[in-house]
This record gives sequence, C-alpha cells and structure tokens, in this order.
Amino acid sequence: MRARFPGNFSQLDPFFKPNSVAIVGASDGKGKVGRLFMERFLEAGFQKLYPINTREAEVLGISAYKKITDVPGTVDLALVLVPPKSVLDVVKECTAKGVKGIVVVTAKIGEEGVEQEHEAVRVAREAGCRVVGPNCLGIYCPEFRLPFSLGPGMEAGDVGIVSQSGSFADILTKVGTAHGVKFSKAISCGNECDLHAVDFLEYLGNDPETRIILAYFEGTKDGHRLNQVIREVTRVKPVILWKCGITPEGRRAATSHTGSLAGVRRIWEGLLNGAGVIRVHSIEETLDCLYAFNSQPLPKGRRIAIISGPGGPAVGTVDTCVNLGLEVPGLTMATKEALRKIIPSFGTSVENPVDLSFSTILNPGVYGEVIQLLASEEHIDMVLVISYGGEHFIKAIDRVRRYSNKPLAVSLLGPLESIAGDFKFLLQNGVPAYLDPARAAKSLAWLARYAVFAEVRT
Amino acid sequence: MRARFPGNFSQLDPFFKPNSVAIVGASDGKGKVGRLFMERFLEAGFQKLYPINTREAEVLGISAYKKITDVPGTVDLALVLVPPKSVLDVVKECTAKGVKGIVVVTAKIGEEGVEQEHEAVRVAREAGCRVVGPNCLGIYCPEFRLPFSLGPGMEAGDVGIVSQSGSFADILTKVGTAHGVKFSKAISCGNECDLHAVDFLEYLGNDPETRIILAYFEGTKDGHRLNQVIREVTRVKPVILWKCGITPEGRRAATSHTGSLAGVRRIWEGLLNGAGVIRVHSIEETLDCLYAFNSQPLPKGRRIAIISGPGGPAVGTVDTCVNLGLEVPGLTMATKEALRKIIPSFGTSVENPVDLSFSTILNPGVYGEVIQLLASEEHIDMVLVISYGGEHFIKAIDRVRRYSNKPLAVSLLGPLESIAGDFKFLLQNGVPAYLDPARAAKSLAWLARYAVFAEVRT
Repeated sequence: MRARFPGNFSQLDPFFKPNSVAIVGASDGKGKVGRLFMERFLEAGFQKLYPINTREAEVLGISAYKKITDVPGTVDLALVLVPPKSVLDVVKECTAKGVKGIVVVTAKIGEEGVEQEHEAVRVAREAGCRVVGPNCLGIYCPEFRLPFSLGPGMEAGDVGIVSQSGSFADILTKVGTAHGVKFSKAISCGNECDLHAVDFLEYLGNDPETRIILAYFEGTKDGHRLNQVIREVTRVKPVILWKCGITPEGRRAATSHTGSLAGVRRIWEGLLNGAGVIRVHSIEETLDCLYAFNSQPLPKGRRIAIISGPGGPAVGTVDTCVNLGLEVPGLTMATKEALRKIIPSFGTSVENPVDLSFSTILNPGVYGEVIQLLASEEHIDMVLVISYGGEHFIKAIDRVRRYSNKPLAVSLLGPLESIAGDFKFLLQNGVPAYLDPARAAKSLAWLARYAVFAEVRT
Repeated sequence: MRARFPGNFSQLDPFFKPNSVAIVGASDGKGKVGRLFMERFLEAGFQKLYPINTREAEVLGISAYKKITDVPGTVDLALVLVPPKSVLDVVKECTAKGVKGIVVVTAKIGEEGVEQEHEAVRVAREAGCRVVGPNCLGIYCPEFRLPFSLGPGMEAGDVGIVSQSGSFADILTKVGTAHGVKFSKAISCGNECDLHAVDFLEYLGNDPETRIILAYFEGTKDGHRLNQVIREVTRVKPVILWKCGITPEGRRAATSHTGSLAGVRRIWEGLLNGAGVIRVHSIEETLDCLYAFNSQPLPKGRRIAIISGPGGPAVGTVDTCVNLGLEVPGLTMATKEALRKIIPSFGTSVENPVDLSFSTILNPGVYGEVIQLLASEEHIDMVLVISYGGEHFIKAIDRVRRYSNKPLAVSLLGPLESIAGDFKFLLQNGVPAYLDPARAAKSLAWLARYAVFAEVRT
C-alpha cells in the first residue's frame, strides 16, 4: 500500500501484526494482571503464545518458559508485566531474543528515577526494537487476534484509537463493540518512554484499515510534530479527540497519571481547532460522536428536520440545534399537505419540528412514513427523530434507514431498562441512537461541521 | 397549613384532591385517547370514576353516563376528551353539574378562532370553576390516585412538576419513578386558556408536600408576575427549570406547540438567572440534576474529591469540575499515607483524583474504604466516584452512603446493558448515578451553586 503521507511505519508493524507473542510475567494467580492478560489472549484465540514465568512450567495449561530466550523459534512481540526493578533485564533479554516490539505494561521501568528507563530505550533501539509504555494496556488488533483488557469483541472493523489513557481505550473498545462499532486497532501509549501517541496517530492516519480515529491526549513532548501530523491526518480522515489536562488542576492530574506535559491551554486550543479536529469533552461525547461518524454519511448542508412524538422536547431540541449552528427550516406547502395525509390533526403539528403527539403512541409506525417523506425533501439535509421506542417504531426505523442517503439520528426517551434493548438494536443496525435529543443534535452538528471542513479541504 | 407566601390556592385544590372524576369522552375503542385515560385511572385504583359516553352504557366495565349531568352525586373534576367543537357544550354541562375543576385534554376549544375558548373560560369562572388546558395531559397526583398518561408509579413523594409540555411531565414522571424518584404532583398546563403555569408554580411553591420543583416553560403572558412568583418560590425550595423557545426558531416552534409567547432571550435570561433558578437544557440534564437534589445533602463548600478506577476519565473529570467552578484540592500528607495503606502502588495514585487503576478490577471493594476515608476529610465537601460497577462495588457504595453526610455521586462506565441494573439499584437506593463522569460532576456543581444561593438567601 502506498503511504498517504511520508513516514516510517514498518517499525510499528510488529505491534499490530505479530505472529508470536511472549507474556513476560504471565501468571495463574487469581486477581493477578499476569493472569488477566493470559486469559484475554486465550479468549481471543491467539495461537503462538508464550507465557514466561520464572517458577511455573505451565500457565493456564500453556507451556511456560523461565526466560524469553528459552522460547524455541522467534518471538515478535513481548508484553512485560514484571515488577519495575526487573523490566530493564527483561528488555535486554527481549532484544537478545530478537523481539521487535516490547509493550511495558508495568507502571515504571526501574524503581526510582529515569536512568533504567533511558537505558531500556537505548538497548531496544540499538537492536532495532521499539517500546510502548510503561504504564499502559498495550495494543488491541482484532485482525491479528490481539486482545484488550476489558475483553471487547474480536471482529475487525475500521475505527482506530490512540490513547494516552489505557482506560479510555479500554472503555471505548468495550462499549463500542457492545454497540456495533468494530475496531481496526487501539493503542494505549502510557508514559511514552520511546514511542509517542503522535507516532501512532500518524500510523493510523496512514493505515488503510482505519477510517475514523479516536484520540485521547493529555500532553506531548513535541508540539511542533503533533501539529504537523494532526493536520496531515485530518486531511484524510476524521479525528475525534479529547484533550485532557486543559485546566491547571487537570494538568497536575495528567502529570501524576502519565507523566505528560499537558501544556498551555491556549496553545492546545489553537492547535486542535486550527487542524479541523472534532473536539469532544467526555467519554459519552466521544461515543456519541463516534456513533454518528461510524454509520452515517456526511450531510450536504446544515438543514435539519426534527420529528417527534413528545412535543416539548422537540421545542427544546430546536433551541439546541440552532445554538449548535444548524438550521431548522420551515417545510414547503407540498410537504405539509403530504404530512397532513399521514398524521391525524389532534394536537399534532406539520411544521418543523413535526409534532406527532399522541399519534405515535397509538400508531408508532407513523414515524417511518414521516421520516421517508422528510428525508426525500430537497431542502432537508438530515433528520433527527425523538421517540419512546417500542417494537413498531424500531421496525419502521429499520425499514427507512435502508433507503435514506441522508444522516439520521434517533433519540429514545424512557427508563433506561425499557429502552436499552432498542438502543442496542439501533446502534448494531447502523442507526446512531441517543438517550437524549440534545445529544442526537450535537452528533449531527459534528457531522455537519466536519462536512464543511472536508469540503474546504478537498 | 399556613401559606408560605400569600396567594389564593383553594381554587386549585379540586385539581389535586378530587373525590370524584368524570372522563368526558371515555371510550372502549382500542387506540383511543379516551381508553388510555380510562385504563390509567383504573390502574391507579381511583374509586369514584364516571365515564361519560353518548353511546355506550359501560366503558371498560364501568357504568357510563350520556351526560355529566346524569351522574348521581357530585363530580369534583372533569377530564374533557371530546372533539374541539363539543368542548364548550361540555364545559357548560360541567358547570351546571357543579364541577370545580375542568381539564381540557382536547387540543382546542372550538374548531377555529378563540371565541369558544373565551366563552368557555367565562362560563367556568362565573360558576367558580377553573380550567386547565386545552392541549394538555392533565394532572398527576399519586396521593389522590390521579394517574398520568405514560403510567408512572403511584407512590407519593415530594417532587413537583409544572410543565407547559405534556410530554416533558410525562417522561419525567415515568423515568423518575423507574429510578426511585417519587412525586407529589405534576401539572401539564397545555395552552393555558385560564390557569397558567405560573399559578401552579406558586401552588407548588406553597405546597408542604413539595420539596423540589421541576419546571418546563416555553413562555408566559405575564412576565412581571412570573418574575415575582419565581423569586418567592426559589426562596423556599429549589426550582430546576428548562426554558424552551429561547432561540427565534425555538420561539416559532413553541408558538406552534402550545401557542406560547416565548419572549425575548435576554429578558428570560435575566429573569431566570437573577431569581436563583437552577437552569437545565435537556431532559437528561433535568433528570441528572433531579437525582442529585432528590437524595443528596447540600455541600458546605465547592471542594470535590474524585475517586476513579479508570485513570484517563479521572483527569478529564478534573477539567470538567474546574470548568464548572468546583475546586479539586490536593490531599493532606496524612490522607495520602492512609490511602497508601489501602491501595496497592502498581500504577495507582494517592493524589486527587485518586487513581485506583487495576486494583478496582481485582478488588472492587477497595472503593468503599477510599470513599469513607475521603468523605471524612475536613477539606473535602463532596465525592465523585467513577467505576465499571459490579456487585462488589455496588455493595461498597451501599454501605458507605449510609454513613456519609456529604454529597456523593457515582458515574458508571460500560455497555448500557451491563450497567443498567447497577444504575437503577443505586438510584433507587438514594445514590445519584450517571452514565458519564462529566454528568456526575455537573450535578454536584449544581448542588454546590444552589448551596451558595441558599446560604446568601437565609
């Protein structure tokens, strides 16, 4: 594959495409991280797995080795889980074995100071080997059966994650796969003793398997390079990014979390906003945004139609849309006429927002016809639907989404328990679903904003 | 009971405390609104219920009458569901019968213009009777077995709702009761031909059964009076308010929805912000805010401790808290020492946010000890906990919440299906739970802001 922009990517391949993996510090012990990783690799069905354990001959039924150098045949990737004081020695053994990628899950290299860390990186690089971590959760790549710690699905997709927080990547992959998102790769970079988040951002930008990128950043040691890379990547695919540590208190927390230099707020704001990054500010926002980008086309403009059963939330949603920079245009006379034929006159409205009122409780199928009608309107670019859910509604949505080439988002209202099933069904079937109309509106607004950026860029 | 502030409230009592109710336009027909209301009253166990139907002798097994004047004995409250052209006649019959409260559910009084509406109000008032609606869902009052259309629980509590949107009140009561909130009264005011939302706001403000008020406003016909009432009410209890129709497009939608005059944005902003109202901007925000006010004490200050398993979201939550005006203070040496005895050193942090990292996956009970420790710190006013949930975690929270007198909020992270049960359990047991840390932070910030207002006020 031709690189989309210049860069040296082959050095990172062993992290995503290893044929064989050693887990140094693998364990049988209940409640041990060494057991968690072993279990995940076995669940994922990874084949050439070598547990390294100084005392046991077997870990979870798999033959173990005392040292990585005892393993017969090659080892492409090593996960290191041993205590901080032993990491440097393990790195040396890994390079002696010819390992090309090392992931240090352990929180530190050496018990104090940075000397052992520097030495580990020097040794690795000299041997043509790169290091991820320390203090990370490693790499998730379903195509090559590389698992992740919370155990997301192992079906490969085209959403990539690069994260300076392990748990961010963990939660996103776990919740995402439960809701129908499939991932190409996820990288938890940790404290970045060698490879940085920006290296992986560049890698994912260039990766033909990755269509959308999610990123969690706390800081960078090279703002200039990040600026350059981020501009290159946003030119070819959407980057949904959460910058944490933006306040002074957050910066202090970031330093304590991953040792990041979180930097000055206004420099980050300038960098990210200038680069066309889609900025989010919570896990929920990241997922909300992802659901829209994952399944919906970009809108041709910013004109939205709102279709609602409940009337009040529809009025509030108009405010939300307008405040987000969307337009809520009036409908044409012809459309209103057509609507009047579909919905009863009792307490309804054929304006925009279309207020279906009670008619949806009595006939939830009415949604399908109304969506189809509005989505085929020339002066409507996208459709937001508000509903209490239910079997008929879900069927209607499932039918119309196949025929519409305009972005659609659904907000379900009701007790969590009673809408959780519909929520999951919609997401798994390519309809972004939200638990509040304001969040559906925000997600469509992100699509519209990115569409403008993509237009200008080309 | 002594009125908390002056006002004539006895005229509104028949709407909440009727001994007998007539449903004019009650029906057996499937998919009819007249059936929906009948079913709800029967489910609620309301005793003296009189269906009025011009053709049937029985509705759902209850003796029906052709006219309300045929009912033996008195009728306190009438719900009117007949077509618009018949409403005025029904109102006249109601007053002849001596009814003291009429709720017009029907979208309009008369098919065109406002003449019949004005006449209906004149006739009613002359007879000492008041009217709610048209275009509303009526009254929910569990203490007196008055049901609501989505069928919320019938256990009485102390949260009141006044809403110009029926669906807002509907959703709030439905979702609220599913999540452990109990209501005193909810009023859907509709198009306010006679009684206005402000009348009910005043009533709820004076109602000893109501401790917290939720309000949805689109507009008002008397801004001066609203300003006066809202200031009186916020002096004695928290008012969580969503003002819709704040943008020009939203105003247009409000007019089409309830005929409200939504008014100019800056006038509303001034009125609401000056009155110490807690302003929310979506259904989700309203519920989020309610959950905190419903079960938590007011904090003594704005210093928050964040306790998290996942590290990344904790850093982001610090930003969120600071941006919301909360303080995230450092911990004392003594607290850090005490924390070090509870949590392992592997990848954790004993700063604020406390990063429990992997230790929570391996030992979710650790949360309980850490919360207890921080909640007893003098320099901490409230505690926000971030977790993946699970049995041990829930047990730990359930234990500590009994001993803490500081506000606590929990954010659960994970796929909706797997956390829905924990979410519900926490809410039903007096712990405000959120699906994102940012929302938990926002809710605690609302409490802290109201605490300052309450302090200044007294």
